Amino acid sequence: MATTVGAAAEFARLRAEFRDKGLGGRVGFGNRPALLVVDMTCAFTDPDAPLGGNLGPQLAAISALLEPARATDLPVIFSTVGYEDGLADAGMWIRKIPANRTLLASSPGTAVDPLLGRRPEESMLVKKFPSCFFGTDLATRLLSAGVDTLLVTGATTSGCVRATVVDACSYGFRTIVVEEAVGDRAELPHAAALFDMDAKYADVVGLDEAVAALRG
Amino acid sequence: MATTVGAAAEFARLRAEFRDKGLGGRVGFGNRPALLVVDMTCAFTDPDAPLGGNLGPQLAAISALLEPARATDLPVIFSTVGYEDGLADAGMWIRKIPANRTLLASSPGTAVDPLLGRRPEESMLVKKFPSCFFGTDLATRLLSAGVDTLLVTGATTSGCVRATVVDACSYGFRTIVVEEAVGDRAELPHAAALFDMDAKYADVVGLDEAVAALRG
Amino acid sequence: MATTVGAAAEFARLRAEFRDKGLGGRVGFGNRPALLVVDMTCAFTDPDAPLGGNLGPQLAAISALLEPARATDLPVIFSTVGYEDGLADAGMWIRKIPANRTLLASSPGTAVDPLLGRRPEESMLVKKFPSCFFGTDLATRLLSAGVDTLLVTGATTSGCVRATVVDACSYGFRTIVVEEAVGDRAELPHAAALFDMDAKYADVVGLDEAVAALRG
Amino acid sequence: MATTVGAAAEFARLRAEFRDKGLGGRVGFGNRPALLVVDMTCAFTDPDAPLGGNLGPQLAAISALLEPARATDLPVIFSTVGYEDGLADAGMWIRKIPANRTLLASSPGTAVDPLLGRRPEESMLVKKFPSCFFGTDLATRLLSAGVDTLLVTGATTSGCVRATVVDACSYGFRTIVVEEAVGDRAELPHAAALFDMDAKYADVVGLDEAVAALRG
Repeated sequence: MATTVGAAAEFARLRAEFRDKGLGGRVGFGNRPALLVVDMTCAFTDPDAPLGGNLGPQLAAISALLEPARATDLPVIFSTVGYEDGLADAGMWIRKIPANRTLLASSPGTAVDPLLGRRPEESMLVKKFPSCFFGTDLATRLLSAGVDTLLVTGATTSGCVRATVVDACSYGFRTIVVEEAVGDRAELPHAAALFDMDAKYADVVGLDEAVAALRG
Repeated sequence: MATTVGAAAEFARLRAEFRDKGLGGRVGFGNRPALLVVDMTCAFTDPDAPLGGNLGPQLAAISALLEPARATDLPVIFSTVGYEDGLADAGMWIRKIPANRTLLASSPGTAVDPLLGRRPEESMLVKKFPSCFFGTDLATRLLSAGVDTLLVTGATTSGCVRATVVDACSYGFRTIVVEEAVGDRAELPHAAALFDMDAKYADVVGLDEAVAALRG
Repeated sequence: MATTVGAAAEFARLRAEFRDKGLGGRVGFGNRPALLVVDMTCAFTDPDAPLGGNLGPQLAAISALLEPARATDLPVIFSTVGYEDGLADAGMWIRKIPANRTLLASSPGTAVDPLLGRRPEESMLVKKFPSCFFGTDLATRLLSAGVDTLLVTGATTSGCVRATVVDACSYGFRTIVVEEAVGDRAELPHAAALFDMDAKYADVVGLDEAVAALRG
Repeated sequence: MATTVGAAAEFARLRAEFRDKGLGGRVGFGNRPALLVVDMTCAFTDPDAPLGGNLGPQLAAISALLEPARATDLPVIFSTVGYEDGLADAGMWIRKIPANRTLLASSPGTAVDPLLGRRPEESMLVKKFPSCFFGTDLATRLLSAGVDTLLVTGATTSGCVRATVVDACSYGFRTIVVEEAVGDRAELPHAAALFDMDAKYADVVGLDEAVAALRG
């Protein structure tokens, strides 16, 4: 707890110091956003699963974003990590995270958490690695749909969310992270990832601001 | 300082907890390593430059790695961020980091720090974005040279080093981060990035172990 | 027919002329090949399907390659084009090829032709665009498996085979096209693609040579 | 000559046959085009250079496109192939095209032909492989600039132009090839590439139509 308070104060201090150095600018919302929900599958939202955690508040925040996105027909894209049964597509990543062996495409855990009520017309991106852009057609999907702004939500903040955000920024999308809608296994990596992303790659905004922007 | 002690203890605690969950496996060295030196250019190694910091110890550690890599003719690759004068290739990233406008390819700051004594035959990768793989031919260079292991050094730990490490892991390289050879603007983001990388993408090893492996 | 004879003579003449200019070198086989079977799905092998053609001889040639590849446990990878029901992932390509609307992942036509007897452990790459590398994890699969040589077979020669070959060469793989094992909708584009690939990107070899190399 | 007539007739016949099968649709111009000039460097435009050919008519056609593009401030991007002196970045491609060893970034041949009057603010993309997208930041440049339509010109039609067109289509850009503005070493590969691109990846249009669209 003391750690967390100390870390929060340190990140606040660094935020001001970094701004003075020329980091932490704002990208803002563009003309056509899409909503990306990263890996909110049962394998991650079930606290008893090897890779799972307590993501109830994040599920609620994502639902609050899905409502205006669906009402205004914005592209909604879900991602899942899903490997072949033989794990021939699990690469080197599974050596660092042996628990990835539980993420077989054929297993029920790779389905989106039913609380989010994914609709059949909402895209599902099957990925093998942290970034939703790596080894997938996400850039093409966004570009073909005229999207210029990507709202990123899901799990984990320091893992697949962050990797996706770095690539989205690199491709040239205005990248927005909704703070209440991203979650992690532990608080310190979560806070550090939010700090890094806001300083360098994306605007980290609150849920209310994001919902208002989607409605607008 | 108290913050740092608290954070270090928390990362140590999390390391054990994550290992129990099935993260933090080891990839080890393969048969053919390459040494990558990320953005150790004057724009980053000059503490008075807008994006610079005190990277003296990292320069020394990288030199200690360059010696055996050169002695055994391993591929050595340096990267630099360098934009066109009109910044047409600076994309969205410059909105988050306005100080990127100082990184013009035509400016002297984008040259590798002379302390590293870059040789003419050592490759220089000009990149525009955080990851050394994004929008570059790095994957091809490594693949064509039969490289299976990438040693990553340079700056910043939480920025371009980390982004490069995530992509290296995703491509299927054994990825090794040499702790003494990577540096950042601040201690807490540095520590958080090392923790995340070791848990999820790369082996974080000490300088002595890396030097021994390169000699071996 | 006269056309074909004329074109064949012209390609033969060009082959010699190009060699004099410094094109048409040989890459040869490396140490670890993989066998890639591009889009030999019923949607392409059924002559009555909108995108189909008569690929019987190619199916036989691919079978002849599968036998030694399986006997020596080489990686075998099949690809298929498969879109979401809403075609949100069909991008701009479907505007050029409206018949792509028949390639829904949910339709039986996207399964590999049963004549090839695909085994459960043999990888299936779902792609959306011509190249098997674009928007997929193929580079990672090959790199993680230590593959340095890619044998390319399937359909169509001037379409997905060729696009895949250009990317395989660009990534740094030794790329081999087996002439009897690739097919197209028409003879002239097929011949032109073979000529271009052999001059610039890949060794075009005969079936016997390829089978012998896989056995060796 | 007879060959060419025969081939032209065959391509005309195939064009109709392919349209009946559901290929050869139109993408049209979008809202924001960019003009890409592929490899019109002295190494390719000098007929006496190993990789060169007679591209005088293409230089004239490209100049006719540059005028309205510059007048309306559209993004103009030139590409060049340029390798490090040690050719460590030439990969496998140089094994197929040994003459690529003449394309050193340090040699004068890699500069854009002076007839095109490249302006300092017009981007220069240094690439190593056929496609202007492979191992470069071209997708990001276009996306960041809000480009939805890519006009492709340059050389060679069956080589770098075509490889670029396949990737542009795959990324989701409306891709337009200006027939008079692309050239090759030989007529038959040129004609075959135009046929394939028009049937499957891009609209092949005449110079007048393209100039009018840029002016419009």
